[in-house]
Amino acid sequence: MPGPYDTGLSRTEANFTALSPLSFLPKTAAIYPHRIALIHGEHASTWAQTYVRCRRLASALHRRGIGARQTVAVMAPNVPAVYEAHFGVPMIGAVLNTLNIRLDAEAIAFQLAHGEARVLFTDGEFAPVIARALALLEHKPLVIDIDDPLFPAGARIGALTYEEFLEEGDPDFAWSLPADEFDPIALNYTSGTTGNPKGVVTHHRGAFLNALSEILSCSMPAHSVYLWTLPMFHCNGWCFPWSMAANAGTNICLRRVEPAAIFAAIRTHGVSHMCGAPIVYNMMINAPPALREGLNARVNCFVAGAAPPAATIEGVERLGFQITHVYGLTETYGPAAFCPRQPEWQTLQLEERARLNARQGVAGPLQEAMEVLDPATMLAVPADGQTIGEVMFRGNITMNGYLKNPDATQAAFAGGWFHTGDLAVVEPDGYVRIKDRSKDVIISGGENISSIEVEDVLHRHPAVSLAAVVACPDEKWGEVPCAFIELKADAEADEAGIRAFCRARMAAYKVPKRVVFGPIPKTGTGKVQKFMLRQEVRK
Amino acid sequence: MPGPYDTGLSRTEANFTALSPLSFLPKTAAIYPHRIALIHGEHASTWAQTYVRCRRLASALHRRGIGARQTVAVMAPNVPAVYEAHFGVPMIGAVLNTLNIRLDAEAIAFQLAHGEARVLFTDGEFAPVIARALALLEHKPLVIDIDDPLFPAGARIGALTYEEFLEEGDPDFAWSLPADEFDPIALNYTSGTTGNPKGVVTHHRGAFLNALSEILSCSMPAHSVYLWTLPMFHCNGWCFPWSMAANAGTNICLRRVEPAAIFAAIRTHGVSHMCGAPIVYNMMINAPPALREGLNARVNCFVAGAAPPAATIEGVERLGFQITHVYGLTETYGPAAFCPRQPEWQTLQLEERARLNARQGVAGPLQEAMEVLDPATMLAVPADGQTIGEVMFRGNITMNGYLKNPDATQAAFAGGWFHTGDLAVVEPDGYVRIKDRSKDVIISGGENISSIEVEDVLHRHPAVSLAAVVACPDEKWGEVPCAFIELKADAEADEAGIRAFCRARMAAYKVPKRVVFGPIPKTGTGKVQKFMLRQEVRK
Repeated sequence: MPGPYDTGLSRTEANFTALSPLSFLPKTAAIYPHRIALIHGEHASTWAQTYVRCRRLASALHRRGIGARQTVAVMAPNVPAVYEAHFGVPMIGAVLNTLNIRLDAEAIAFQLAHGEARVLFTDGEFAPVIARALALLEHKPLVIDIDDPLFPAGARIGALTYEEFLEEGDPDFAWSLPADEFDPIALNYTSGTTGNPKGVVTHHRGAFLNALSEILSCSMPAHSVYLWTLPMFHCNGWCFPWSMAANAGTNICLRRVEPAAIFAAIRTHGVSHMCGAPIVYNMMINAPPALREGLNARVNCFVAGAAPPAATIEGVERLGFQITHVYGLTETYGPAAFCPRQPEWQTLQLEERARLNARQGVAGPLQEAMEVLDPATMLAVPADGQTIGEVMFRGNITMNGYLKNPDATQAAFAGGWFHTGDLAVVEPDGYVRIKDRSKDVIISGGENISSIEVEDVLHRHPAVSLAAVVACPDEKWGEVPCAFIELKADAEADEAGIRAFCRARMAAYKVPKRVVFGPIPKTGTGKVQKFMLRQEVRK
Repeated sequence: MPGPYDTGLSRTEANFTALSPLSFLPKTAAIYPHRIALIHGEHASTWAQTYVRCRRLASALHRRGIGARQTVAVMAPNVPAVYEAHFGVPMIGAVLNTLNIRLDAEAIAFQLAHGEARVLFTDGEFAPVIARALALLEHKPLVIDIDDPLFPAGARIGALTYEEFLEEGDPDFAWSLPADEFDPIALNYTSGTTGNPKGVVTHHRGAFLNALSEILSCSMPAHSVYLWTLPMFHCNGWCFPWSMAANAGTNICLRRVEPAAIFAAIRTHGVSHMCGAPIVYNMMINAPPALREGLNARVNCFVAGAAPPAATIEGVERLGFQITHVYGLTETYGPAAFCPRQPEWQTLQLEERARLNARQGVAGPLQEAMEVLDPATMLAVPADGQTIGEVMFRGNITMNGYLKNPDATQAAFAGGWFHTGDLAVVEPDGYVRIKDRSKDVIISGGENISSIEVEDVLHRHPAVSLAAVVACPDEKWGEVPCAFIELKADAEADEAGIRAFCRARMAAYKVPKRVVFGPIPKTGTGKVQKFMLRQEVRK
């Protein structure tokens, strides 16, 4: 017998709408038409103007025959066109593929071919590398030049400019939300520390929720001022393009991440929030004090990285800013975990507070769960700060899967959780602390050595700017740790000194057996390429 | 031919979880176990303790055979048990039916029978009326007494007390999210200005989204302190029970809404947010100044009501608080629209600012749309501040439908929009201003008279505390306006004076032809019962 709630209470057009971050834009444009949405150099555009430009973009793509579930790529730094693409492209159901501007022609060609991009917007600064990439492609996309007034030297290689393309579009274009909120919104390739990158496909539902989750995790008020130090091509700027539409804030574009430009923007525009990798903050910490004069904003900073040195967190706090460590992967739309502060930490010494703040923490407000599981049993490890397991996520802020790669998708989702490949412990307060990437663990004489733990100690050495530790094959021990070190400008250190510094601070078996000084290879997003270091030690 | 995104990217356990506000509780209990969740008199409980109590409640209900899609009713003022019921009841998929404590036995019996309540929790203060209601029921629910230490005089009529019932439950009960996020979470009966109330069924997805939408619309930061002046039995406290779990804040319970208790709570607990009907704020505005001494908190206040007198908004601002007008119905989980302030309003005179702030405004952040449509054509009225249409909502913050009433559900959702029955105009800035309930319009000599417009003028008369205007049958004009007035304590006014006051401020045909002084009948939620006034004028 049917119960009272079993009939007549179903989904209709009145009570069910697809969740999509696109909904934020028309609403903000209607309520706050005259508020400033974007600032780029001397140019500012309002939310009403931005909405019109996004509709023109959607309409122009539509008129060129682009439709749902087709890829539109963008190669540009943080200029307004990339921001607009985050709305205009998915408005017609198409999928936005932002390319990392630090990639080489081969990598770009791979992504354009694999993603089957139909249109490519490219900034003039990157025309040369794009031209080389296009030469490698069998099916070439329609190329459109982003002609940025702040980069007048840019070359043109496309059929028309971005502004000309917008002119083709209808400012009143009647777009619609996706038929299914699980439809793809973006395609982002993993930075690929090994092999070909995988194409991470994300959905409207997850982007909507992560945009809100970011607002909640930083208690970001309406009308915040966000400085684009984080590339929008990096996991769609962690969904902040959409967060800023939701909170009717102001986006400050930044072509190039330089301390002078950062501090000037903070001063001029009253920046309230920014995000970035540790390197951005280190740049600010080490900037000449004159650049920092006259700052009165207390910026809320977000930093992500598998292991931000505690020194970075300390340094940013000394600038008078608030910094929160966040953690995630391309597969989780960028950060899907954060390290919320506890009131009792305030009474601790800065160093201890930084140690606590540097952890990966807990699942973000709208991500269902982050746990550290034994991948063999899928059981949670005890919260003892000792037992290592694999960090796994579950919830709506997780990708659809990898493009045209069902095997990798299935492996990543084995057992109903997304497997990050990061190894971690859970500390007694329930916060996760990553010990290593699974492939980065060094197994020496049967003991597991966390390369991150050794790197953390090395980062405390006053002469060390960057340290990376990998396994070096060893006849006796199987593997031993080998350290690669970049020294600070004008600083000096030698192998014996570094090893002595380590010996005083860790078990003997963890002390690097070799220390190599010199530049460390990094990916386009600034991640250390440990596979190259591993090749190096095998030479 | 399938496109690149057409295979291998579907929903799995790893990337799809039902949206439910229940998710907020375990997360907050894990991250902030020692933060205070609830304060009730001298008693405080932490988020960890609150989560345990909710799990015990869910488990105890489960052990008594209650399951998914069955109704559990609560009759109580704002005490911790009602808060806990917002989590414990839906944790087993059951549906929470909070009863209005101002209802009489017949109305309660109707709701319990219609909703097929299996369990009823009742506060001792309401045992007498509940006992009378139970006597009217054929199938009686399991009755459990909420024995509130702050109301020691309460009677017991149940099988056991709430605390005894919690003892039956497992503190580690393994509950689960609903199978479908569109599953019912709550049942709320409309206050029914005419006829039998309708049972509004709301879903987990909408409750999740509205809880977040409230946080966004007031930029409510983490760890806010919320004072329960709004009854939790009123549209589930506009979803704030769930918002407060999401932002890991503190709930201050309040058995009785009295100015002394309100000001004491603000002073003692540093209240940051509160909600209520205009009457709550009028009570505060008119309180003896001594009660307000020593206030240093700037409370963010939300006021709802089809037409809060601008005087109320003015008065609250004079208290030094910020007030935002919100608008909605039981069918939209309480407020699904709000009146966001524009920066340029700050330079206006308080009276003009209050006039702008008193509008119904725009759709809330996560409700897809509120529009004013011509119900005949379903086309939007022009934003001219003149053309009247019906306010309609569409989006995820709209009920499943009316319980066991498919005809009413279908009528309410005709044309893919939820029809509110409220008549309104859209002003040139896009903000909605309600002119009247459709059935409250007075049609006099072919002219429509907005009863709200006349009431607004009457509320500006210095002697008037409350005014209500209804149509009075008239041989010549069809209908004419008739005013009912409650005077302020110690204030005096007569019919001639009131009519003269109106004549100076409105077209002659709108001036009330009759003025009646005396108490005005109201529903349990404080709404004026115009149908009783209409009966009165027909006598």
